[in-house]
Amino acid sequence: MGAYSIGVDLGGTNLRVAAIDSDGRVLDRFSGSADYSAGPESVVSAIAQVIHQVRSRVSLSGLRGVGIGVPGFIDIDAGVVVEAANLPGFQDFPVRDEIQKLLGTPIILENDANAAALGEMWMGAGKDVRDLILITLGTGIGGGIVVDGKVLHGFLGMAGEIGHMTVFPDGNPCGCGNHGCLEKHASATAIAAMGRMMHFGNDVTAKKVYELALEGNERAKSIYESVGRALGIGLANLINLFNFPLYILSGGPLPAWQLFAPTMFEEVRRRSFTFGRNGTRIERAVLGADAGLFGAAYLPFQQRIYRETSASVG
Amino acid sequence: MGAYSIGVDLGGTNLRVAAIDSDGRVLDRFSGSADYSAGPESVVSAIAQVIHQVRSRVSLSGLRGVGIGVPGFIDIDAGVVVEAANLPGFQDFPVRDEIQKLLGTPIILENDANAAALGEMWMGAGKDVRDLILITLGTGIGGGIVVDGKVLHGFLGMAGEIGHMTVFPDGNPCGCGNHGCLEKHASATAIAAMGRMMHFGNDVTAKKVYELALEGNERAKSIYESVGRALGIGLANLINLFNFPLYILSGGPLPAWQLFAPTMFEEVRRRSFTFGRNGTRIERAVLGADAGLFGAAYLPFQQRIYRETSASVG
Repeated sequence: MGAYSIGVDLGGTNLRVAAIDSDGRVLDRFSGSADYSAGPESVVSAIAQVIHQVRSRVSLSGLRGVGIGVPGFIDIDAGVVVEAANLPGFQDFPVRDEIQKLLGTPIILENDANAAALGEMWMGAGKDVRDLILITLGTGIGGGIVVDGKVLHGFLGMAGEIGHMTVFPDGNPCGCGNHGCLEKHASATAIAAMGRMMHFGNDVTAKKVYELALEGNERAKSIYESVGRALGIGLANLINLFNFPLYILSGGPLPAWQLFAPTMFEEVRRRSFTFGRNGTRIERAVLGADAGLFGAAYLPFQQRIYRETSASVG
Repeated sequence: MGAYSIGVDLGGTNLRVAAIDSDGRVLDRFSGSADYSAGPESVVSAIAQVIHQVRSRVSLSGLRGVGIGVPGFIDIDAGVVVEAANLPGFQDFPVRDEIQKLLGTPIILENDANAAALGEMWMGAGKDVRDLILITLGTGIGGGIVVDGKVLHGFLGMAGEIGHMTVFPDGNPCGCGNHGCLEKHASATAIAAMGRMMHFGNDVTAKKVYELALEGNERAKSIYESVGRALGIGLANLINLFNFPLYILSGGPLPAWQLFAPTMFEEVRRRSFTFGRNGTRIERAVLGADAGLFGAAYLPFQQRIYRETSASVG
């Protein structure tokens, strides 16, 4: 039994855990739910228990560490969740130290979208690159920026807010205070909102708009063209700023790729003169919901590499 | 006499050279012009001659290397200018190797805006940070992104094209093929173009618009408000993506700061919820035209640090 790590994906309701070895093989998995109403101490204790079980099943000695993907802003150095709208009670709670205390194993926290970006680099669409940007289309739009194999955090862990890039300065109002944020024009929520404006009914979902578009409904198709336009403006900005080889899209609206991709690429070609010159790729994520789990599991391996490097420097 | 390096700032018509020690003290300076009509070989030979003279005056033994800032896309690894509209004959010319051959000293090429960003970090407005973005307002808008003390190059050296970020999707047409590029709404050229639209005359300059605004001319003031709006949208995007502590503006229109900054900050506050939360700074550059010279001179010191680090790893 060689070295392995444990990745944890802490969702708003789900708790998913996997033991993964350094070659990316999944050795064990757990999938359950987390009861946030019981308070953070109780959730943390449940996480520790699951990790303990997985570890007992796989190997007690080979565990390199535990990575946890959390949907919120993380103070990486302090190991604290600074803000997490979907994790009631977790704000300013010392998640890392509490779990570390219970398990005696190094714990690394990371924002879930950043973890997903790392996961796609390690075992997904970005296996051949060290620089990529992941854009996750969901209720909102999140993302992760990986520079030279490492997550770009910024000085308070708030980098990668791709969903709040302005794509239409006078566009739809956003809860953040801005108008025309990318996520107000290209998220699943935005697709449903446009569906309501197109009189598809008050309970219309992005999936329903997708089905209508597949059936040839012109208004539904125009919604996805509009999504492609917004994504294209955002992607062209990213390409002009970063000149990375790879940009990955993930999330619920991905099956509608053929509906939004043509206008998306049209916008990107028009708005980024670097795009066509060097084989820049815009692709679909391949790990789906597992990306965050893989990325979380990669964190302890990555930190270990750093430690070995800095150890031999000193 | 301790270690020093030589920085070269190769402009469209100017050639500026400085010998700078590792504490940022300027030991010697040269300022002249370059005659591009004579071909790249002749320009390169003139550069080598100036460097040789400076070196003779300062110290033959202490020179660590030469950094050269070039207004164009650089293939860093190859040491070749891939594209430089303002340096006729330099495309695909092996600048680095040719000068290296003449001098027998390590030469490092860098894009001039990237060099200026490094210079501001080393000895200018960013002395206290390792992550910053410089935006240079001139004929166009250029920029340099510094991550953890190093220039972000992207995979073909084309990162940092801040001037071609889309700020108004249906805005002014740009030579790059896009509409609404930042540089079409906030460069000195854009200010002059808006001045012509406001009927200030066909030969109006950005400086003239500035003087009119200072005199209280409402149309001239509205031009600078519009510049502030475009800069604010662009800066908010950068802040949301990078979460860096510092963004620096430089270039000719900088004296008009008080005319464009209020609307710029208004836009940034509205469009970036991270801006106000962590003391993000947007400031004026302090090194002026010397930023590129300092940054170019910093390159050999920076590479030396890397070499020493990697040497002790291996």
